[in-house]
Amino acid sequence: MEKPGYEIAILGAGNVAWHLAPALETAGHTVSCIYSRSLEHAQALAGKLTSARATNNLDLTSEAADLYILAVKDAALTELLAEARFPENSLVAHTSGTQPLSVFKANPGIRGGVFYPLQTFSKQTLVDFKEIPFCLECADENGMLLLQKTARSLSNQVSEVSSEQRKILHLAAVFASNFTNHLLGISHKIMKEGQLNFDLLQPLVTQTIAKAFGQDPFSVQTGPAVRFDENTIQTQLKALENQVTYREIYELISRSIQQQASKS
Amino acid sequence: MEKPGYEIAILGAGNVAWHLAPALETAGHTVSCIYSRSLEHAQALAGKLTSARATNNLDLTSEAADLYILAVKDAALTELLAEARFPENSLVAHTSGTQPLSVFKANPGIRGGVFYPLQTFSKQTLVDFKEIPFCLECADENGMLLLQKTARSLSNQVSEVSSEQRKILHLAAVFASNFTNHLLGISHKIMKEGQLNFDLLQPLVTQTIAKAFGQDPFSVQTGPAVRFDENTIQTQLKALENQVTYREIYELISRSIQQQASKS
Repeated sequence: MEKPGYEIAILGAGNVAWHLAPALETAGHTVSCIYSRSLEHAQALAGKLTSARATNNLDLTSEAADLYILAVKDAALTELLAEARFPENSLVAHTSGTQPLSVFKANPGIRGGVFYPLQTFSKQTLVDFKEIPFCLECADENGMLLLQKTARSLSNQVSEVSSEQRKILHLAAVFASNFTNHLLGISHKIMKEGQLNFDLLQPLVTQTIAKAFGQDPFSVQTGPAVRFDENTIQTQLKALENQVTYREIYELISRSIQQQASKS
Repeated sequence: MEKPGYEIAILGAGNVAWHLAPALETAGHTVSCIYSRSLEHAQALAGKLTSARATNNLDLTSEAADLYILAVKDAALTELLAEARFPENSLVAHTSGTQPLSVFKANPGIRGGVFYPLQTFSKQTLVDFKEIPFCLECADENGMLLLQKTARSLSNQVSEVSSEQRKILHLAAVFASNFTNHLLGISHKIMKEGQLNFDLLQPLVTQTIAKAFGQDPFSVQTGPAVRFDENTIQTQLKALENQVTYREIYELISRSIQQQASKS
């Protein structure tokens, strides 16, 4: 693997920064600076690193770095970009799945980019960066090259993805990850109320996911809806009669499964 | 592992039987007979086994076996039980997640049981029986003992689950597996239409599932809905404006996520 050894400043000390900063060090880069609105948070992350200074000052004009990574919440990005000062012509990339490249338009003195790791991060859970797809975007050719080298030093899956495609990707990820998690939450609640161990379902769910990524998931659909098994559907709806929203979800997804089955 | 070496007859030659029959042989049992309405299907499965005869005759009174496993579709079970003849006092267990033990009431000459492997089976996909939870039920003590020994010869996860609990388990499985697969199907379709490779989402989905089984999935919910990020929600709804049902699913699950978030 290449070890290009860039100087990188990270703005943000949340879940993404928490995993990304040490991984960048391991890959041979120098993380020179961690900014957070909360100095305490910046210090907590900098303390895990070799030589990063912690700061809550957004004037970074004297903080020379090859790349500034903005690993902050979507809601904080515009405000951060309005307040932060970077050295002239700096390469500044955000890690968001939803924000377009044009979010940098208000900062003509810098080269904007996107450095989006397509994964869900939480502080407690270890992640293997090798397996994380990085989606990159940059209008500047040298900027893109630097983003590519940096991403490839972390991961085996690096692609260029336009803002327009990233929007589609993010919508697909909401269905595949956020909504799936909510269904698992409903399932967990049903099991708990029935005094059953949720872990009983883990082999089934793991196999369901493995099958879904082997082919078009619609083609391997199973269950009462796709069998048009009205008996079971009615029994299960009755079991949900006191949980209005879950009942609506059951009805709507069953209808959608049946619409799909009637098409193919 | 115990190798009790029972004589087992299997009625059915579909996905469950296809995996279960060879696994029973490997575990030291003798599969003596495969019944299917289609003799050809019975022969195809019997051909994978050491010494099973194939039959499409439901008079099994001269087919002595320690256990008769009914691995047929739910819709076929009642009819099969009405037509089949077993030796007096036989132990006959079905593999269904939805059918109660009382389905055997019409057959007073046999001891009914449930031998339910909580997994999704398809002929192409290998399954590791060791990891599959088996849910057993039998009113007869000796019958339950035999079902337990058989299940334990296949799997490390064997539990007694009542018909009432199995109903709850099956409802939870519909949300966690069938509905999750449909959401992955929608996600696959969105990616395909955007000329993006669905596999890009696999690490994210795998991590989502791993996190959901580590704790209450509701407590690790991410995405625009739980952030009450109305901007992103409206943008994504607009992207779905030509896909009415998917738009409804997006709206309903987002609302459910927000209801849950407001509770906790």
